[in-house]
Amino acid sequence: MTVPMLMKIGAWGDGLTRFNISQRPKLIPYLREHLGVESFPDHPWTWEPKNVGIPPSSLSESFVREMRSILGAEDLSQDPIVRFRHATGKSYKDLLRVRLNKVESFPDAVVFPRDEEVLARLLSLCSREGVAVVPFGGGTSVVGGVDPLKGRFSSVLTLNMQRMNRVLQIDEASQTATIEAGILGPDMERQLNDRGYTLGHFPQSFEFSSLGGWLATRSSGQNSICYGGIEKMVVALRMVTERGIYQTPLVPRHACGPDLKELFLGTEGTFGIFSSAVLHVHRVPERKEYFLVAFPSFRMAAEAVRQVVQNKVPVAMLRLSDEDETHAMFHFVEATKINPVKQMVETLGKSYLKLRGIFPPKMAALMVGLEGSREQISERRAWLKQILGEHRYMNLGSAPGRKWLKDRFFLPYFRDDCLDYGLFLDTFETATEWSNLFHLYETVRGNIAEVFRRDGLKLKLYTHVSHLYQDGAALYFTILGQQGKDPLAQWHRVKEIANTSVLGSGGVISHHHGIGVDHKNHQYGDALVKRLFRQVKHDLDPEGILNPEKWNN
Amino acid sequence: MTVPMLMKIGAWGDGLTRFNISQRPKLIPYLREHLGVESFPDHPWTWEPKNVGIPPSSLSESFVREMRSILGAEDLSQDPIVRFRHATGKSYKDLLRVRLNKVESFPDAVVFPRDEEVLARLLSLCSREGVAVVPFGGGTSVVGGVDPLKGRFSSVLTLNMQRMNRVLQIDEASQTATIEAGILGPDMERQLNDRGYTLGHFPQSFEFSSLGGWLATRSSGQNSICYGGIEKMVVALRMVTERGIYQTPLVPRHACGPDLKELFLGTEGTFGIFSSAVLHVHRVPERKEYFLVAFPSFRMAAEAVRQVVQNKVPVAMLRLSDEDETHAMFHFVEATKINPVKQMVETLGKSYLKLRGIFPPKMAALMVGLEGSREQISERRAWLKQILGEHRYMNLGSAPGRKWLKDRFFLPYFRDDCLDYGLFLDTFETATEWSNLFHLYETVRGNIAEVFRRDGLKLKLYTHVSHLYQDGAALYFTILGQQGKDPLAQWHRVKEIANTSVLGSGGVISHHHGIGVDHKNHQYGDALVKRLFRQVKHDLDPEGILNPEKWNN
Repeated sequence: MTVPMLMKIGAWGDGLTRFNISQRPKLIPYLREHLGVESFPDHPWTWEPKNVGIPPSSLSESFVREMRSILGAEDLSQDPIVRFRHATGKSYKDLLRVRLNKVESFPDAVVFPRDEEVLARLLSLCSREGVAVVPFGGGTSVVGGVDPLKGRFSSVLTLNMQRMNRVLQIDEASQTATIEAGILGPDMERQLNDRGYTLGHFPQSFEFSSLGGWLATRSSGQNSICYGGIEKMVVALRMVTERGIYQTPLVPRHACGPDLKELFLGTEGTFGIFSSAVLHVHRVPERKEYFLVAFPSFRMAAEAVRQVVQNKVPVAMLRLSDEDETHAMFHFVEATKINPVKQMVETLGKSYLKLRGIFPPKMAALMVGLEGSREQISERRAWLKQILGEHRYMNLGSAPGRKWLKDRFFLPYFRDDCLDYGLFLDTFETATEWSNLFHLYETVRGNIAEVFRRDGLKLKLYTHVSHLYQDGAALYFTILGQQGKDPLAQWHRVKEIANTSVLGSGGVISHHHGIGVDHKNHQYGDALVKRLFRQVKHDLDPEGILNPEKWNN
Repeated sequence: MTVPMLMKIGAWGDGLTRFNISQRPKLIPYLREHLGVESFPDHPWTWEPKNVGIPPSSLSESFVREMRSILGAEDLSQDPIVRFRHATGKSYKDLLRVRLNKVESFPDAVVFPRDEEVLARLLSLCSREGVAVVPFGGGTSVVGGVDPLKGRFSSVLTLNMQRMNRVLQIDEASQTATIEAGILGPDMERQLNDRGYTLGHFPQSFEFSSLGGWLATRSSGQNSICYGGIEKMVVALRMVTERGIYQTPLVPRHACGPDLKELFLGTEGTFGIFSSAVLHVHRVPERKEYFLVAFPSFRMAAEAVRQVVQNKVPVAMLRLSDEDETHAMFHFVEATKINPVKQMVETLGKSYLKLRGIFPPKMAALMVGLEGSREQISERRAWLKQILGEHRYMNLGSAPGRKWLKDRFFLPYFRDDCLDYGLFLDTFETATEWSNLFHLYETVRGNIAEVFRRDGLKLKLYTHVSHLYQDGAALYFTILGQQGKDPLAQWHRVKEIANTSVLGSGGVISHHHGIGVDHKNHQYGDALVKRLFRQVKHDLDPEGILNPEKWNN
C-alpha cells in the first residue's frame, strides 16, 4: 500500500473498485419500481479539479519554514489537490458537497508526521502560533469528523497520520501488540496475520480507516460481539496534547481511580492525538462458518437473538435484518453479492418455508458467524440450535455466509452509483436497551418515512441489528430514497429528524460513527456533563487548537 | 439484616462468627513451627470503650439543627460509640490502631440519608458550611478509604449510605437492575436471587461491603473472570456532587465521547457519592462445580492458566496458589476448612503424585470453578482437560471445591486471631502483564522477605493469582509474620517496601483494594495525569469537601 493512501475525491474507495448498477440487470427493476429511477447509463461521475476554487493557503511563510524545520522534505504539502483531498470525509453529505461544488473549508496545509516526537513538536508550534489542527487517519468519517474547520483561528492544518504506521512490538505471552496510530486496517491485519494474530476489528470502513480513527471515534466492527468495540481492544494508549504526552498504565486492570483510557477514547481529536496504542491481539481462528437463518418477523428474530446473547453463546457475529432490508436483499442478490437468499428460497420452495411460519418475501434474515476450531464451531452450532429451537426459524445454509464474508466491505461502493442516479443514500446508527428497542425502531422509522411522504418522494428504509449486548443492541438504519430538488437542504432536514427521533425515543446519538459535526448538538448529557468535558478539554488543549467546532467544542 | 449493619469494633465480621485457632489442633503446630507462636489461649481481644478518648463533636449546634431539618430523627448520630465505629476501616493497620488505642480521627457526626434528594441537600449544606464529608458503605476498606480525615476543614461528617438500600427496578428484557448504592452484598443477592438473578460480584468482603463501596473502589470479586470487575457490571450510574447530580447514559454502548462512568468509577468518594446504579444481572447458574488441580510448580501452573484464559474457556473462577500458599493449605485444612488437600494427598499417595511430576508438599494448587447447565459444565471440563493435558497436572477432585464455596468469605476472620497471638497479617494486590508476572513476583517476595529477615522475624509469604485477563493477571500477596516491637512502625516500613517493590517492578499499586490513604503517594501517572484528575476534582467538588486526603486529594 502506498502511504499515504488517499481515497478517490467525492467517492468511496481508491477508484479501482466499482459497484456499477448498470451492469446488474436484477437490481435495475427494483430501483425502478421502488425508487423511481428511470434510466441507468454507465457514466460514473468524476471530479474535475478545474471547476473547484480552492483559496490560497493562509499560512505565513515563516510558519511554513518552521514546520519544514521539524518535518521531512516530503512531509508537508500545500498542493491544492492534496488540500482538497483532505477537505471532507465520506458521508453522503460530503459526497454531495463535492459534487455540488459546495466544499467551503480547506486545510491550509497537510502534514505527514513520521513519529511521535515530530507530532509533539508540531502541536507545540501550532499551539504557540494559534493554528488549528485537524487529525486525519483514513478520512472515512461519515459525520464530518475530518472537516478542516478553523474555529476562532485564521489557519488550519490537517495532520495526516498515515506515515506513523509501524507495528512496534508484539508481546506473545501477553497477546498484545503496540502499534502506531496511523496504520490502516489492511496493513495492520496483514502484519498481525503474518504472526498468527488478528485484532478482530472489522468496521465497514476497514479497507481505508486507521487505528487512530478507530480510537478517536470509539469505532466498532462487524465482529464486536466477539472481540468488542475498540474500547475493549485497548490495553494502553499514548496521546499527544498541547500540554504533553499522556500515557495510560500498561496493566490488565487496576483500582486506582478512573480508567484514563476511557476518558480519551472517543474524543475525536479534541483532547489530543493518539500516537500509538497497546492492543489485545488474538490467534487467527482456525475456521469460519457463517450462515443465514430466516425468521417469520424482525420482532420474533430480535427475541431469539436477545436470548442467544443473554445465554452468552460465543458467536463471532450476529447481523439481523428487518423485513424491509431482508426483502431488499432478495433483489440485491446478484447485484451486491451480499447473499443469494432469493435462490435459496427458490430452491427450498415457498411452501416449505410456510410450514415453518415464514412467508417470503416478508421475513427477517439473520446472518450468524461462528469462528474457532471445528469442535468449537460444532458445539456452538448445537447450542444455537437449542436456543433458536424455541422460536420459528429456518437455516438457509452457509452459501450466503461465504458470499457475505467475501463482500463484507463492499456496500459503501453502492452509494457512489446511487448519487449518479439521483438517489439519497445515508445511514445512521444508535443503541438502546432491549426493553426500548421496538419503541425506538417504530418511532424513528415513522418519522423518517413521514418526511419523504410529505415531500412526495419515494423511500426504502432498511434496519439491521449488528452489535448486540446483554442489555441492548445497536440499530443501524439505511435511508435509500429519491433526492429532493435541493439535496443538501433535504439532507439537513432528514438528518435533523433522524437525530431528534433517536434522542426522543431513548437512543444515543451514535453507536459507532461518532459525533463530528453532524451530531454536535445532540451529544448526550446535560449542562453539567458538557461543562465537565469542556473543563477537561480546556486542561489538555488550553489554546483550543484541536479539531475546533467538532465534538465538545 | 438490621440497617445499618455495623461490624465489630477492631475486628472483622459482626461478632457472631469466629475463626478460633485455639480449637484447631492441626493449625497450632504450623503456627508454632513457622511463625514461632508459643501459646494459644482462647482469650479473644475485646474492645473496651472506657479506654478510648473520643473528643467531643466539633459541629456547631446550628449546623446540627440544619442537618436535622433535612434528615429523619433517627438518621443523625453524635453518639461517641457510633462515631468510633465509623472511625476506621478494616485493614491490619486499622485493627492495630484500635487495639493500640491509636485512632486519632473521628467523624463529628454520622448521618444516614434515606434517599438521593436528602443526600444532595446534605452535600449542598456541607459545601456551604465547609464541612468535610466521608462516604461509608460497609466500612470494609483495607486501604484507609473511610478514615474520617478533615483536610483543611474543622469538622468532618461520615455519610453512612446503608439506608439507601432498595432494589428500585428489574428490567427483565434487558437483564438489568437499578439498585441504590447503600445496599450490602447479601441483601442485594437475596433480592436478586428471589427473581432468579445474580449480580455475580463476590469480593471477599461480600458479607459486609456495599454496592457504593464496590463502585467507588473499582472492586473485583472472586468470579471476575466470568462476570468482570464492577466496572463491567455497570450500565449507568448516578453520582451526587457538590455541583449537582450526574447521570451517565443508559445505553449498551455509544460513540459519543468518553465513557463517563469510567471517569467516576474508582474515585473513592472524592468526585461525588454514588446514589444508584443500573447493573447487568445474570440468570443464577443451574449448577456449580469447583474442583482442585495440582501442578508441579507455580510457574508451570501459571503457564497453564494463561493458556486457559487466552483460549477463552468460559470458566467461573480460577484461583492459583503458589507453592508456599499451597503448602499452607495442607496445614490449614482442618483449621480454615478451605480445602482438604492434605487428605487427598494422603488418599492418592505421594508415589502416584510423583508419577505426575508432583512432589508434595512442593506443588501449586489451582481451584477451578465451572458454572452453568450440566451440559455446559461438561463441555467446559472437556475443553479444560484438553488444554491442561499439555501440562503436568493432577485433578484432586471436587471435595475441596465444595469446601471452598462454603467458606469463600471466611478467611478474614483468621486475622483477628492472628492479632491475638502477636502476628502480622496483611495482604496487598497488584496486576501486571503476563510477560512481567514472574519478574514482579520474585522482586516483591524478595524485598518483603528481606525486611523480616533483617529484623530477625519469622515470615510466611503466600501468593495467589485469582483475577486473570487475556494480557495479564493480578497477584495477591499475604504476609503472615511475627510482629515487631512497634507493630505500627513495622507495618509502615513493610507497606512502604511493598508499595515501592510493586511499582518498581512494573505493577500497578492496586488491582482491587483501591488507593485510600495507604496508596496515596503511589498512584499511577505522572504530573500531567495527576494534574488532569485534580482539575476534574476541582470542577465537581470546588470546595474540596469530598473525602479529603484520600485518592487524588
